[in-house]
Amino acid sequence: MTKNQIRPTFSQIKEAYEQGKTVVHRTPVLTCNSINQMVQSQLFFKCENFQKTGSFKFRGASNCVFSLSDKQALSGVVTHSSGNHAAALSLSARMRNIPAYIVMPSTAPNVKVEAVRGYGGIITFCQPTLKAREETAQKIINEKHAHLIHPYNNYNIIAGQGTAVLELIEEINDLDIILAPVGGGGLLSGTAVTVKSQKDTVQVIGCEPENADDAFRSKKAGYIIPSENPDTIADGLLTSLGTKTFPIIRDLVDDIVLVSETEIMNAMRLVFERMKMVIEPSAAVPLGALISDKLEVKDKKVGIIVSGGNIDTKNISSIIKNK
Amino acid sequence: MTKNQIRPTFSQIKEAYEQGKTVVHRTPVLTCNSINQMVQSQLFFKCENFQKTGSFKFRGASNCVFSLSDKQALSGVVTHSSGNHAAALSLSARMRNIPAYIVMPSTAPNVKVEAVRGYGGIITFCQPTLKAREETAQKIINEKHAHLIHPYNNYNIIAGQGTAVLELIEEINDLDIILAPVGGGGLLSGTAVTVKSQKDTVQVIGCEPENADDAFRSKKAGYIIPSENPDTIADGLLTSLGTKTFPIIRDLVDDIVLVSETEIMNAMRLVFERMKMVIEPSAAVPLGALISDKLEVKDKKVGIIVSGGNIDTKNISSIIKNK
Repeated sequence: MTKNQIRPTFSQIKEAYEQGKTVVHRTPVLTCNSINQMVQSQLFFKCENFQKTGSFKFRGASNCVFSLSDKQALSGVVTHSSGNHAAALSLSARMRNIPAYIVMPSTAPNVKVEAVRGYGGIITFCQPTLKAREETAQKIINEKHAHLIHPYNNYNIIAGQGTAVLELIEEINDLDIILAPVGGGGLLSGTAVTVKSQKDTVQVIGCEPENADDAFRSKKAGYIIPSENPDTIADGLLTSLGTKTFPIIRDLVDDIVLVSETEIMNAMRLVFERMKMVIEPSAAVPLGALISDKLEVKDKKVGIIVSGGNIDTKNISSIIKNK
Repeated sequence: MTKNQIRPTFSQIKEAYEQGKTVVHRTPVLTCNSINQMVQSQLFFKCENFQKTGSFKFRGASNCVFSLSDKQALSGVVTHSSGNHAAALSLSARMRNIPAYIVMPSTAPNVKVEAVRGYGGIITFCQPTLKAREETAQKIINEKHAHLIHPYNNYNIIAGQGTAVLELIEEINDLDIILAPVGGGGLLSGTAVTVKSQKDTVQVIGCEPENADDAFRSKKAGYIIPSENPDTIADGLLTSLGTKTFPIIRDLVDDIVLVSETEIMNAMRLVFERMKMVIEPSAAVPLGALISDKLEVKDKKVGIIVSGGNIDTKNISSIIKNK
């Protein structure tokens, strides 16, 4: 990546795609007639819940890890995200046979700790504050010379995430609209760069929980307005846009729509019952926008990036039962 | 089909496959590294839980419906199965714009009634005995001249079910073993005919609940021994082999293994947690055989027909939580 770049180029996304071919799952694109009838349009679900480590995050993380030179890679990678990115980075590092240092708050749920451990991540616990996480990560960088891999504010991450929609539009080449959830914005910005550089008449819409609406407000304002105490079941979307993702979303994304907690849960349940898939709440936000008529999609062909399927099974029954 | 035939020929399965191309979903083949590590072999899951109506049954039912002549089709089709076959037959009939008469016991769970209704089936309720179901179906045949489509004891059904594994071996052409659940035997016999006529060194194994082990006992005895009061969570496998499926299973299937209720539930949970898929208990029986070391598969390539994903969401939480 060059110095004054403001977004990854399409050829960088294409490189990520070529590099990923041997490590990334090409996930299936599924359809569901009964949901199509419900929303009166044709939906194409790009199922990143079936991606390695259970989310699209593996695309960006592995792109970063495999883009390091042998010398760089030797000292390993570090991050202070505790969710899907941490799992994805851990597995990517293990596949390259290098260490992944994961800084996690001491309060992290056991299921996340176990996931990272299962993929071979080396965990350092710290106090549950952003300051403690950043300081602990910095200490590891100083000691081990490990490379910090930010979960979204990194052009190699953004390029990697953009490969999901590249596979989707390769397979379904006449989509009218593409929907992706937005948290830190890595997936949405990568999606937008890919789509707009291939066919700029295709609409790209970000879908965000009402209770974590920083991208919606930031895009409207024209500058980054971070979320304050976001509180949503979509735990992958609690983060706010970064300095690298915001400008892409400001410039290339057509719109951002907000979705309520109930709509998210209804969409999750619908996918579970009709499509026989487990998706995490964050992944249900785009369908939540459709089933609540937040978007005009009648007779359109709509692509949806289903971002992941990692959900604590303890919680799923309450979500599914909650009719 | 000719009169003295003892099984569908491979070319009849091929015809079913060609005919199905425009109506049947080509379902994805998924893999899961963590489950592979657990069983020390490479598993390839043919995901018929993503098939139309949520199970492989749509393959056989649609093959029957679309094999009828226009004149035959006019009077519609009838069955007295109330599960996945009824849903599959209803949708197949609707796609051909003919009536599907479904005879159901008055005690059928609401979720099954709603599924059949949702696909346009015309339901006639009767007393919950086999006699009442057969008589009611016969009455409809007499009145409407509708064609009885048996859920498994029918060569067009068997040929249709055999198309799932045909797609699987087209995609993964060096499998060593193929596993399918067995209830009435339509799926297992169709699978066996396809596999053995293509490459007879590939093993075909039927997987059956211990608590509904009629296929296991029948194959051992050399004649049909129906189940008496089978009682298993795998509600799709309560039926016993038929006169058309038994000889195929006797002659072409290499072995039948039995799986306990706990193993079935453990397999379901594993697929849910690791593969992010909803599968019904019947579909979990083959994986149940693997995780309990019932089969020697070390370093082998194993295909599994994941038969369906229709489960009452009310029941899933207890199954998933039951660790």
